[in-house]
Amino acid sequence: MESLVLEAGAAVQKLQGFIGKVIKDAGFSHAVVGLSGGIDSSLACYLAVGALGQENVLGVRMPYQTSSQDSLDHAQMVIEALGIRSETHPISEMVDPWIKRSPEMNAVRKGNIMARTRMIVLYDRSAEFKGLVVGTGNKTEELLGYTTLFGDSACALNPLGDLYKTQVRHLARFLGIPEVIIAKPPTADLWKGQTDEGELGFSYAEVDKLLFDLVDKHLSRQECIRKGYPDNFVAKVVKTIRQNAFKRTVAPIAYLEGNYDFVNDPHWGK
Amino acid sequence: MESLVLEAGAAVQKLQGFIGKVIKDAGFSHAVVGLSGGIDSSLACYLAVGALGQENVLGVRMPYQTSSQDSLDHAQMVIEALGIRSETHPISEMVDPWIKRSPEMNAVRKGNIMARTRMIVLYDRSAEFKGLVVGTGNKTEELLGYTTLFGDSACALNPLGDLYKTQVRHLARFLGIPEVIIAKPPTADLWKGQTDEGELGFSYAEVDKLLFDLVDKHLSRQECIRKGYPDNFVAKVVKTIRQNAFKRTVAPIAYLEGNYDFVNDPHWGK
Repeated sequence: MESLVLEAGAAVQKLQGFIGKVIKDAGFSHAVVGLSGGIDSSLACYLAVGALGQENVLGVRMPYQTSSQDSLDHAQMVIEALGIRSETHPISEMVDPWIKRSPEMNAVRKGNIMARTRMIVLYDRSAEFKGLVVGTGNKTEELLGYTTLFGDSACALNPLGDLYKTQVRHLARFLGIPEVIIAKPPTADLWKGQTDEGELGFSYAEVDKLLFDLVDKHLSRQECIRKGYPDNFVAKVVKTIRQNAFKRTVAPIAYLEGNYDFVNDPHWGK
Repeated sequence: MESLVLEAGAAVQKLQGFIGKVIKDAGFSHAVVGLSGGIDSSLACYLAVGALGQENVLGVRMPYQTSSQDSLDHAQMVIEALGIRSETHPISEMVDPWIKRSPEMNAVRKGNIMARTRMIVLYDRSAEFKGLVVGTGNKTEELLGYTTLFGDSACALNPLGDLYKTQVRHLARFLGIPEVIIAKPPTADLWKGQTDEGELGFSYAEVDKLLFDLVDKHLSRQECIRKGYPDNFVAKVVKTIRQNAFKRTVAPIAYLEGNYDFVNDPHWGK
């Protein structure tokens, strides 16, 4: 890819093909999407419906007691626009007993508990619905580690994992996702007033350009600085990507004598 | 490795070295281990203490209301034998509100919810203790998928992931783990009377030999059958390994144009 600008129609085709193939190859026909009311889960749900049909997708809303009404309303707009089945499962009852035991708990820990409790609910509903959990994490947040491990990042397949946030916006507009969802400031809605860009300390538009140069174009730090990115911005982003690499891989195993990759050996098990 | 028989001293050295290195490289000095009272988590805890020192390891017991008293007592034996700090956090309060909403829920779904709730507690305690979560999954159960994704399999590092269950027993005896823990029938203790071998339909001694031949010695199915393993046993195990491959890897990402593995490029980010 030469720039962040996608050919939207071709990208949608490819992503829907991916969803259809992965789910079929796993022996399934249904998908489950946790709908936060944000742009990422909305796009994931639109793509899943495009791939599988509205009758095979379940949208699940999982509000915590502090979740904004907007989040619920926007998720409902997606459900109605797509005509999919939906469920709403408040998570406060599961979350609060644990939070109450640690009065000193900070907002990040609380946010992680909420995200992981949603994973529990979503996976349990997927067992009943006999569907696979479709991930909603985009490339920007996966690279920056702006995600909860075993929480919102937990999924069976990840259709948005190669799309930067600005590309998510592009495809969302292309698919006609309600503009109120596309235009609002992205937020995990884990506490009042939280916004992604406020927490990260830079805008998605800025960081996506740098990430594209660093990751997709393989530019060195010096080349990025020569292109005009501030020195400390480049340093911070590279460090953040490195520090969060553990979230994008499986935990290291203590191999006693090397590791035979039998899963990718076509002769194995014959 | 030529057989399942390990040189125990060398293996323990290697596994402790792995734990020490991974935790130090990540910028940490502490570890957290969820103690079920079973042999795997006991061994993981002994190895963590060997690597980091007793003062740097936290053992966490997380009983559900139906957990057996033996499980709690055996975990306590490990805590006392090693002289580590410990905490006990019952999980019923978090688990039950969700289970009660689905009266038709089967035992497997309940077990997954318990395992994932323990992950939430363990990760939250690790945030406070500033330690990494040490995994307790062995090679037998990882190959067979006898584990809850994002539950008991969730960890920052996996010291037992290349040890078959019979090898876990060997190292446990070598390290002097209480014999009552080694000798009891392995169980996830998710419901009364549950045993691993009852659920799997074969013994660990039998399946470990076959897994070693299939995975470590790369024997074909026909070669295994000629060695005397029953045809349907080989077929079942190969199928189980294949079906559970998704638990041993990250979810597939929909790459639009191939995937540049920048994480393993030594020049990246320079």
